[in-house]
Amino acid sequence: MADIPARTELKVTTGPIRGSRKIHVGPLGVAMREIDLEPSSGEPPIRVYDTSGPYTDPQARIDIMAGLPEIRRDWIRARGDVEEVAQREVRPEDNGQLGPDRSGGVQPFPNVRKQVLRAKPGANVSQMHYARRGIITPEMEYVAERENLGRAKMGTVALSRDGESFGASIPDYVTPEFVRDEVARGRAIIPNNINHPESEPMAIGRNFLVKINANIGNSAVASTVASEVDKMVWSIRWGADTVMDLSTGRNIHDTREWILRNAPVPIGTVPIYQALEKVGGVAEDLTWEIFRDTLIEQAEQGVDYFTIHAGVRLGYIPMAAKRVTGIVSRGGSIMAKWCLAHHKESFLYEHFDEITEIMKAYDIAYSLGDGLRPGSIADANDEAQFSELYTLGELTHRAWKQDVQVMIEGPGHVPMHKIKENMDKQLEVCGEAPFYTLGPLTTDIAPGYDHITSGIGAAMIGWYGTAMLCYVTPKEHLGLPDRDDVKVGVVTYKLAAHAADLAKGHPAAQVRDNALSKARFEFRWRDQFNLSLDPDTAEEYHDQTLPAEGAKTAHFCSMCGPKFCSMQISQEVRAFANKQNQGVEGFLATGPTGAETAAASKAAALKGMEEMSKVFKETGSELYMGSGGREHD
Amino acid sequence: MADIPARTELKVTTGPIRGSRKIHVGPLGVAMREIDLEPSSGEPPIRVYDTSGPYTDPQARIDIMAGLPEIRRDWIRARGDVEEVAQREVRPEDNGQLGPDRSGGVQPFPNVRKQVLRAKPGANVSQMHYARRGIITPEMEYVAERENLGRAKMGTVALSRDGESFGASIPDYVTPEFVRDEVARGRAIIPNNINHPESEPMAIGRNFLVKINANIGNSAVASTVASEVDKMVWSIRWGADTVMDLSTGRNIHDTREWILRNAPVPIGTVPIYQALEKVGGVAEDLTWEIFRDTLIEQAEQGVDYFTIHAGVRLGYIPMAAKRVTGIVSRGGSIMAKWCLAHHKESFLYEHFDEITEIMKAYDIAYSLGDGLRPGSIADANDEAQFSELYTLGELTHRAWKQDVQVMIEGPGHVPMHKIKENMDKQLEVCGEAPFYTLGPLTTDIAPGYDHITSGIGAAMIGWYGTAMLCYVTPKEHLGLPDRDDVKVGVVTYKLAAHAADLAKGHPAAQVRDNALSKARFEFRWRDQFNLSLDPDTAEEYHDQTLPAEGAKTAHFCSMCGPKFCSMQISQEVRAFANKQNQGVEGFLATGPTGAETAAASKAAALKGMEEMSKVFKETGSELYMGSGGREHD
Repeated sequence: MADIPARTELKVTTGPIRGSRKIHVGPLGVAMREIDLEPSSGEPPIRVYDTSGPYTDPQARIDIMAGLPEIRRDWIRARGDVEEVAQREVRPEDNGQLGPDRSGGVQPFPNVRKQVLRAKPGANVSQMHYARRGIITPEMEYVAERENLGRAKMGTVALSRDGESFGASIPDYVTPEFVRDEVARGRAIIPNNINHPESEPMAIGRNFLVKINANIGNSAVASTVASEVDKMVWSIRWGADTVMDLSTGRNIHDTREWILRNAPVPIGTVPIYQALEKVGGVAEDLTWEIFRDTLIEQAEQGVDYFTIHAGVRLGYIPMAAKRVTGIVSRGGSIMAKWCLAHHKESFLYEHFDEITEIMKAYDIAYSLGDGLRPGSIADANDEAQFSELYTLGELTHRAWKQDVQVMIEGPGHVPMHKIKENMDKQLEVCGEAPFYTLGPLTTDIAPGYDHITSGIGAAMIGWYGTAMLCYVTPKEHLGLPDRDDVKVGVVTYKLAAHAADLAKGHPAAQVRDNALSKARFEFRWRDQFNLSLDPDTAEEYHDQTLPAEGAKTAHFCSMCGPKFCSMQISQEVRAFANKQNQGVEGFLATGPTGAETAAASKAAALKGMEEMSKVFKETGSELYMGSGGREHD
Repeated sequence: MADIPARTELKVTTGPIRGSRKIHVGPLGVAMREIDLEPSSGEPPIRVYDTSGPYTDPQARIDIMAGLPEIRRDWIRARGDVEEVAQREVRPEDNGQLGPDRSGGVQPFPNVRKQVLRAKPGANVSQMHYARRGIITPEMEYVAERENLGRAKMGTVALSRDGESFGASIPDYVTPEFVRDEVARGRAIIPNNINHPESEPMAIGRNFLVKINANIGNSAVASTVASEVDKMVWSIRWGADTVMDLSTGRNIHDTREWILRNAPVPIGTVPIYQALEKVGGVAEDLTWEIFRDTLIEQAEQGVDYFTIHAGVRLGYIPMAAKRVTGIVSRGGSIMAKWCLAHHKESFLYEHFDEITEIMKAYDIAYSLGDGLRPGSIADANDEAQFSELYTLGELTHRAWKQDVQVMIEGPGHVPMHKIKENMDKQLEVCGEAPFYTLGPLTTDIAPGYDHITSGIGAAMIGWYGTAMLCYVTPKEHLGLPDRDDVKVGVVTYKLAAHAADLAKGHPAAQVRDNALSKARFEFRWRDQFNLSLDPDTAEEYHDQTLPAEGAKTAHFCSMCGPKFCSMQISQEVRAFANKQNQGVEGFLATGPTGAETAAASKAAALKGMEEMSKVFKETGSELYMGSGGREHD
């Protein structure tokens, strides 16, 4: 019972992120970060999206043993559609303690609720249900404020709508009405279980900022509860919008309770993992009843979204058996084994509408799992994968009939040229329900660097329309990520999501890039560090070669030194021209303009190509055939 | 003079890359690596492209003080078109020693040649010149063998031609004739100065494997010659196809000599850097004569390609002065300053044909520099950038008139949706001359992670047709990369280049992915490590949680533990079905097939969408409008 140490020893990282202040915006006090720039810049502070919760607020009192304040408590109760019920009693098997050996347990969370919330009989407490009845909830208002990054409606920041959004409908300004509409039509979800009132509302949908998820959780062979709580806090510090607790092995119930009570972001789980522990790891012994009981258990704790692998149907298993890497989803393989052993359709599929009944009583969102996602380049976009996707489309519409929120999980390992097909098919059959992808990894050959192989695919599929990107850490395929891996994974995915926002033309996305680039050009090193996704690392890297304080204002860095600094020379070019009292343009106003010069060059280039083509033709040479026409051998 | 230590202290990394053997293929002994798989796999060894030179060959005797063997010496001389001339004498200013203070110098390379090669009067020794006369050189034969990765013409490996190449013409099998044709038409270059006979020939072109470049070099404020030689050897160990020596400050000449004599890959430089040092860092004092002398100096040392910023024309400077980040190319900003100070067209542009005369006497390839590349998202694809590109197109054709090889440098900072336009315009105006890009970085906000922000752009532009990707390290924008940064940069770009090869449908690319994925599925951990781009890191990460030797054959890892291993369960699924003596498919042959199941699900999904749409229409709701049609506010 020693895993969670005494109060004074339990450590999570608190305090402001370097160079920024916590602010609370609007009547709901939506949390954001504000980065002050050096006075010399003459620019206002930059507001950025903030997932870190009270942990980065110096005003907040953090007590892991007590849990976070319940910011949504009153909103939930004010709707009058919930009732208090006694929480299902925790059983030894909930923590994987099946036999007489009860060693290795952890201290339960000290502040467990005796009473939990549930929808009143016949009620539906999902945000989608409210939205479809035209109700704007405080959660929707919170989301609207948050997505605008504190911009005023007719903000002073000029809107850049340069981008290619592939059919998304990103508004210039997000209103609560817009959030409601998106939730109503299923294009966005706000995952927040009524039993997780600690969570700050956020939206996942392709007309909002692209989100990222971080996976944490212990396994039977590694990690502890304390380190998982620490990883959760650490991952949201760097930008994780949601966190999945993928714990297996022992102490699943208690680990989750510690995480939920201290999490200001939505928490997702894969309930089949715990169900499997309850039957001693024997997939064939799983039953609907055990699974259902697990859903209730987790629903009462406050899990915000469930990964349910209901698309792994009996008939699809032969398709996957032929693959290079078979089934690589844990949940998918468990269900495949069950189906095959019983020679029966999946109980998740068969009982899907009953699961939905449970989801709507707590407002848990579906994350329909892609149990047949490809685990290698060779298996990408195959029959097994897309067959399952069609079933996920069917289930989306079944869930929507009960006004339950849905997102769809996606691959996996996919080479670049096959990524867009995934997005297009998902939009087609899942009615634009938010897509939530793992990477995808664009090659299999870089274990140790799979945050990068997958970051490439993630940025691309985010651009194409994926609403949330599930991170991959450097340890993927090799081991359980530690704290450092979690940070690298989160920052990598944060930059991929931001690259996607830029490419989609999100109206506020480029503000931060512009501010950072301007700081770079003006040698405001501190501003450059503070505006970056990871100010600590940026400053540390700079200081490895030029640690002196004076170097923070120097007009050069160790890369080029003072004489070769292009930024410095560029500034000299400007200054020189200004000295002529006419600007660069005026100074050069004799001779051809730049545009005339460029036009002449372009004409010469095209003429050159024509001539070369002619020479080859005249000499009868086979060497010059023009582009693209010929395959050799 | 103590920077290059005594023989016993000078350290570069030698010895085989873990889990692989050096092999030499074909009559020319083309160097490759072969990775043996565990006997249980029943599979032949995997051959991979190898840039590491003799350093990874246990048979080779490495002596940095003597330099590498001259493998091309006889090929070059056998053509009968070169003559020996006395090497230009080294002057103090070549090493930045202008004043009376000559301290800080380094020991010159001990084995400097007194005589160097040059084309006989009137001769042209460029590979393009030979190619256009129909000659197949040993260099072209070497390239052909190398690009096939040792595959036999009708190899046993089934060809996978799945991909989207955007008009590239990648053959199933590369013949020497194909190499000659590509070089003749300017679609590929083989950069190898006749004075760098140590280099192993390689090709840069979009119908060959995508290549990567690593930048090294000291600056006025950091690094030493010894560490730059070490970085060169280190970078090619991990896969750098070419290396650019971007040294500035002192000792430029001697640093380059050490690097060239020990480099089995082409070396590129930016001669204007050294020219600027010769005039004490005052851009205005640069002259054509000093620049020309620098070209000869470096040509005689053996530099294989020169970055020449001849596209920065006087008229373009006002376009760049308006930008958020002005001019971010060092060479570009130097030339801009010169042009503005003299109010004159660039001497690089004015003397371009004379430069070409020099290039063809040594077979140096142009790398036409993009001095006006964007340094921020805000400046991407602007008038300055594309104007310069048109001039680079014009110059390409001018160089080709003298049969001189050309590649074109590209950006920079570009958001994802603007990347393809760069490639398309480059192909149009530069006659398919190889494109060589720096990233591009897809966002500005992640200093410390710019190998990743740029790796995303690099993979994409490589897919679209870029022939060589210039790496970016984690230190970009912050400091001079150290050895670790060099490795991370190289591996990141190697995986990006490979992702591009896969997406383009390179016929041999997927062999390695498939082998690694199969090893993963079969729990051949050692094969998985050895097949990866960085076996050391892969094994280290695995061992951080499961260090025991037995874990290398365990059917699980620390991520999931034994019960939750999807790969293990997948294998059990196969085994179970096989026990029924009929395979999974046969076992399930009652009931609907998977295809029937999927078709029914798809139909249900599409019907669901239709119904939902109808409901919304009938209720007159504005909530459901279909996709893409509506902007809010």
